Amino acid sequence: MFIGEKKIARPFRWGIVGGGRTSGVGYKHRLGAMRDNTSFVLKAAAFDLDFARCVDFGKNLNMDEERLYPDYKTMFAEEAKREDGIEAVDIATPNFQHFEVCKAALEAGLHVICEKPLFFKVEEGEEIKKLAEEKGKIVCVTYGFSGFDLLSQMRSMVLNGDIGEVTMVDLRYAHGFACDPTGDKQAEGQKWRVDPAKSGPSFVLGDLSTHTFYMSELICPQLKLKQLLCDRQSFIKSRAPLEDNAYVLMRYENGAVGRMWASAVNAGDMSSQHIRIVGTKASLEWNDMHPDELYYEVQGQPRQTLVRAMDYLNPEALEYERLGALHYTGLIESWSNLYTRFAIAMDAKNRGDEETLKNLVYPDLEHGIDGIRWVTKCVESADKGGVWVDFK
Amino acid sequence: MFIGEKKIARPFRWGIVGGGRTSGVGYKHRLGAMRDNTSFVLKAAAFDLDFARCVDFGKNLNMDEERLYPDYKTMFAEEAKREDGIEAVDIATPNFQHFEVCKAALEAGLHVICEKPLFFKVEEGEEIKKLAEEKGKIVCVTYGFSGFDLLSQMRSMVLNGDIGEVTMVDLRYAHGFACDPTGDKQAEGQKWRVDPAKSGPSFVLGDLSTHTFYMSELICPQLKLKQLLCDRQSFIKSRAPLEDNAYVLMRYENGAVGRMWASAVNAGDMSSQHIRIVGTKASLEWNDMHPDELYYEVQGQPRQTLVRAMDYLNPEALEYERLGALHYTGLIESWSNLYTRFAIAMDAKNRGDEETLKNLVYPDLEHGIDGIRWVTKCVESADKGGVWVDFK
Amino acid sequence: MFIGEKKIARPFRWGIVGGGRTSGVGYKHRLGAMRDNTSFVLKAAAFDLDFARCVDFGKNLNMDEERLYPDYKTMFAEEAKREDGIEAVDIATPNFQHFEVCKAALEAGLHVICEKPLFFKVEEGEEIKKLAEEKGKIVCVTYGFSGFDLLSQMRSMVLNGDIGEVTMVDLRYAHGFACDPTGDKQAEGQKWRVDPAKSGPSFVLGDLSTHTFYMSELICPQLKLKQLLCDRQSFIKSRAPLEDNAYVLMRYENGAVGRMWASAVNAGDMSSQHIRIVGTKASLEWNDMHPDELYYEVQGQPRQTLVRAMDYLNPEALEYERLGALHYTGLIESWSNLYTRFAIAMDAKNRGDEETLKNLVYPDLEHGIDGIRWVTKCVESADKGGVWVDFK
Amino acid sequence: MFIGEKKIARPFRWGIVGGGRTSGVGYKHRLGAMRDNTSFVLKAAAFDLDFARCVDFGKNLNMDEERLYPDYKTMFAEEAKREDGIEAVDIATPNFQHFEVCKAALEAGLHVICEKPLFFKVEEGEEIKKLAEEKGKIVCVTYGFSGFDLLSQMRSMVLNGDIGEVTMVDLRYAHGFACDPTGDKQAEGQKWRVDPAKSGPSFVLGDLSTHTFYMSELICPQLKLKQLLCDRQSFIKSRAPLEDNAYVLMRYENGAVGRMWASAVNAGDMSSQHIRIVGTKASLEWNDMHPDELYYEVQGQPRQTLVRAMDYLNPEALEYERLGALHYTGLIESWSNLYTRFAIAMDAKNRGDEETLKNLVYPDLEHGIDGIRWVTKCVESADKGGVWVDFK
Repeated sequence: MFIGEKKIARPFRWGIVGGGRTSGVGYKHRLGAMRDNTSFVLKAAAFDLDFARCVDFGKNLNMDEERLYPDYKTMFAEEAKREDGIEAVDIATPNFQHFEVCKAALEAGLHVICEKPLFFKVEEGEEIKKLAEEKGKIVCVTYGFSGFDLLSQMRSMVLNGDIGEVTMVDLRYAHGFACDPTGDKQAEGQKWRVDPAKSGPSFVLGDLSTHTFYMSELICPQLKLKQLLCDRQSFIKSRAPLEDNAYVLMRYENGAVGRMWASAVNAGDMSSQHIRIVGTKASLEWNDMHPDELYYEVQGQPRQTLVRAMDYLNPEALEYERLGALHYTGLIESWSNLYTRFAIAMDAKNRGDEETLKNLVYPDLEHGIDGIRWVTKCVESADKGGVWVDFK
Repeated sequence: MFIGEKKIARPFRWGIVGGGRTSGVGYKHRLGAMRDNTSFVLKAAAFDLDFARCVDFGKNLNMDEERLYPDYKTMFAEEAKREDGIEAVDIATPNFQHFEVCKAALEAGLHVICEKPLFFKVEEGEEIKKLAEEKGKIVCVTYGFSGFDLLSQMRSMVLNGDIGEVTMVDLRYAHGFACDPTGDKQAEGQKWRVDPAKSGPSFVLGDLSTHTFYMSELICPQLKLKQLLCDRQSFIKSRAPLEDNAYVLMRYENGAVGRMWASAVNAGDMSSQHIRIVGTKASLEWNDMHPDELYYEVQGQPRQTLVRAMDYLNPEALEYERLGALHYTGLIESWSNLYTRFAIAMDAKNRGDEETLKNLVYPDLEHGIDGIRWVTKCVESADKGGVWVDFK
Repeated sequence: MFIGEKKIARPFRWGIVGGGRTSGVGYKHRLGAMRDNTSFVLKAAAFDLDFARCVDFGKNLNMDEERLYPDYKTMFAEEAKREDGIEAVDIATPNFQHFEVCKAALEAGLHVICEKPLFFKVEEGEEIKKLAEEKGKIVCVTYGFSGFDLLSQMRSMVLNGDIGEVTMVDLRYAHGFACDPTGDKQAEGQKWRVDPAKSGPSFVLGDLSTHTFYMSELICPQLKLKQLLCDRQSFIKSRAPLEDNAYVLMRYENGAVGRMWASAVNAGDMSSQHIRIVGTKASLEWNDMHPDELYYEVQGQPRQTLVRAMDYLNPEALEYERLGALHYTGLIESWSNLYTRFAIAMDAKNRGDEETLKNLVYPDLEHGIDGIRWVTKCVESADKGGVWVDFK
Repeated sequence: MFIGEKKIARPFRWGIVGGGRTSGVGYKHRLGAMRDNTSFVLKAAAFDLDFARCVDFGKNLNMDEERLYPDYKTMFAEEAKREDGIEAVDIATPNFQHFEVCKAALEAGLHVICEKPLFFKVEEGEEIKKLAEEKGKIVCVTYGFSGFDLLSQMRSMVLNGDIGEVTMVDLRYAHGFACDPTGDKQAEGQKWRVDPAKSGPSFVLGDLSTHTFYMSELICPQLKLKQLLCDRQSFIKSRAPLEDNAYVLMRYENGAVGRMWASAVNAGDMSSQHIRIVGTKASLEWNDMHPDELYYEVQGQPRQTLVRAMDYLNPEALEYERLGALHYTGLIESWSNLYTRFAIAMDAKNRGDEETLKNLVYPDLEHGIDGIRWVTKCVESADKGGVWVDFK
């Protein structure tokens, strides 16, 4: 059990680009990072294109006004001059800025935590990879749902063979909050998501399904995706060419198959993210509405409901466990677990501790690039009429 | 509320081909047909290829020994000679016999109730259709899960526009009872299902997904399937070319899309059949493990759980309701509802009452032919590598 | 698995008193009794105080008109004259008639199946017990929810020690269908229930909780109730002195304790009957809305969900299993299981087969008398202000 | 929506007594208090009777070593000397110390946040109340489950009459984690709970049911408890006279009734806390395993599932909402909401803002005293043999 004691010598000084007052996700970054004040401490921010709003917001977070900046370039430049300048930065902007901010951050010698989908093109990912290696920095991707303890349990059960060989991967991230197109024009957080210039070549494939696709990689690291086929729709016509719904079929190297359903027009559904991993002898099922429960279904035996924090779980599922049994957790515990690992990764990188880095499970740059590839290939398949395309 | 009072002047005299002691489904036919003794009365049977077992079984049902027959031909011939001979027959044999028995039954002047999948080829369906018309007889198909009251509710809500325009049809019939291949060689009820000579060109597509596909036709009669794409697998290698798992994508004429997952290797799953109909403003969701509950999810409003037999349901969902609220039902109520409608259809046909026939909702010969087409097209798509094929 | 083959040499000829067109429960009796036509066959009835309605109803069930009677006395007298007269009778009248009809039936040499609560006074139960013994007849009580396969599983698990020693018995039969008092004056089936002259000294204690109390006796036959305490309310004032809600606390001989909540004003609840049996190391939980699922919760282990018809169940839970796994059942299967056992009991009694009778688990006259005692003691405790009273 | 912006001018300087490395609840206090670093900042602590462990732990939280103290007396004395000394203190010790620490804290001029059950005797509560008034300080009680947004929704729906008049209050806090008595001797956090000298006159009544009783006061502020009756047991004999299980019946002034089940030997149950409020026309049901879902059941209508953060909720349920719809929360959000209100209350008290104080809903000293009274009266009733006693 982990009750907040420090895992690294001192917390990183940390800044944010984007994620201001109108950003729901910005708060999640801050909570994840600062939960225990032992991994990261927020020191600087360029929260907003509207600088006055940035300052007002930062002051309301009791931040030091002089470290609130009008834009990321100024922030990186000014912070670099300080002895107590930031060491890591979080990129919580609309998608189209991820690449340029990430590049600038690495060049400024900062570790990076970036929102998904990472960039628009695989080539951009490769360029950043090269740069990060040169600079000796870490790039983490906030697949923010991937830190739940029971996902670690799923991974360890799959790797232990508790379900036999994996045969099927059934994925879903499908809610209905964009059924009404009004938000496309009015809501600051929705407007850019349906604008190809800002969102990239996809809407729900990038915004939603990259999360769940990464989670499938996390749980089944042994599976290699071989081919996929995607059919995508714009049920709200004005969103075309961006899709608000997509179906994907998958074929893995070893003969396993899979599906993804990504949607923002699945009217009325409140349990948006579901993962079912089927094996030759048993299945695992989890959903993000009840993240502390995991169904383990061995064919011919009673269904078992595993619950977070219980002693019968594997060590991987207990390492970051914080609250104890009967005390249920939510999305923020997932974010906190991730941010704790980000800090451990950055600290290990700084110390040249490759052993720790190798064993640490977290969404890194490679996973971010896989996410770009996922979106790119899905769009390619769909735009060709829904045909099979090779993944790599 | 329907508490068993007769809906037709007198019950039909009724016989069975197949459905003997080793047949799970035979009992469901008998229960469905004879629940109230006001629709059908079992008078004759050719239960089994093993005549001694047929006789022993029939006697244990308190049937008249002289009306237990060694085969369907004898039964049709002998019953035709009796003044009190059977008027309708149920075909509960392995798939490959459906066509010949059905043809013989119609030629013997009997109404027919036949198991799914109806036949192997659409052409056979067309031939039977012509014959049934000539003979003035009804052919019903036992999509035995389709008689639940709440499916009638779903149909009426869809037709009333309660979910807006239908955009998606998500279907699943996926259990794990064939994870272990032992039964393929040992279980009488499983052996023929994985033998192409007896089962036809598919295993789970025909055996399972025809049910759920019909249920989607029942609920969304306005939708016309335009194209489908199928990827099928034989996870137990010895079953090839028959699939034990299949994914299907669908495109409808009006722009709606859909999915089907059919599986007998979905390890550990006990809630095998799921239907989710998504509309522009709301969704409906139902599964056959809890058939008396229906989720109605309007985007932006609390999820509603509708329960069978409650006054707030539409008349269509209450017409065959038998037990009253708080008294939960199971699969047999579905079968009973269907058989009651089969009797009404046969009676109307006999009386030349086309009005009743036109308005009665039940799985008829056309739906049976659609099921054959569904299997045929899925197999065609899969065998071509998983490509889009036109449905009609 | 039981697929309807006969368990006794021939079905009993059977009649009904009450249970006509306005009776919901009458249909359940008929379905339970005649499901397979191998246990009972309905031959005669005095369905209704309104003889015309009785005749009309009986004809709609395709019954022989001459065996439809204006009252039970006539029925017993006329049937006694026939060679093919009834051998058993079902009493489905309002409570106040149970005693007189039961007595008359036994005197007419009939086996009896009677609705709960059996009679008003324990002394009446004792009188009937003596009479039944003299006449060599069986009296069964239709605790109609007690025939579910998984209740047999619970009993066998408790007796096997799978939960350790029983410490708590938590019972609930609490729905909200009498929140609105309109039915008290208008609904034929509700009017008599709130009239002490017809219903007896209680409303929900007798009408509802006797079911669940019997089910606790079925599951935990080793427990002996020592004391109880009841607090009852009439939330709809016009029902006083009859209660529409009651809380009961229990103390058993061995130190176990228990609770019952009986209510008809538990607004909006649709899963009315819940049973939780807690032991020193595990618990069992079941509810009648999902009767094919049983939770087995061992402290410190994942919750297990046991499902009806699966091979891992105990033989007691599979003996009457009818439909096979994945085919879910409802209330009628419970009634059918009970009626099958009633027929076996009557047949054994007729044959003098005491061994069979001793081992057969079904709600018999003793359980009916326990139900009367339950109501009597609850009312006594409540009327004294909610104090502890000895059960026996 | 609340994304962490400050609600008071600056965060309080805050200290802790108890709640060190072996205390699960200490972490919850810290997380609740410091979530956004805008309400409280941890400056000093006397975490542990073992001072070395206190120092080690505090250093691992990156605290200033010189403000880690061997005991509360030293802490209060030393902090009082500092200009930047603590302004508020949290008492997270075993129960028997609450009173003395609370008294000393008030005398040292600190606001107090104290664990439940507050003290052992109502008189102690009255004494502290007088002292707090004299000193102009706030005493808050950490009924840590009471801050969930949907409890605020329940309160507002009850007060709005959405369920009619409340008739029943059904409460439960019943888990099974003390089925095994090993922990009584070995686990630091369990040992003192079963020692009357440290825990007080009860085990589960104080430790568990005070939470749920307060939550019923929160939801139904209009109800006044008139009488209660308690039956308590020590299923693990060595715990006597402290109970590990208790049943309570309640009668309210207005005729409503209620129940409580408190248990630590409810084997295997993982959804420990349930609240059902029944009204004349509808009910509300909530449990702490799925705290973001609330069932609203209007008799005769479909059950509605209300979900946290949705626009259809009342303003009271949205005021402290932090994450947005589809992003599910856990216990820590409840603690954070409470601590935010504690800070608002202290700030208002300091500013003499009685209007804010009057309208703020949080567990205050009066509720703490009600909790003491609850335990006292339950024990009195049980020790008299399970009789009705007046609540006030």
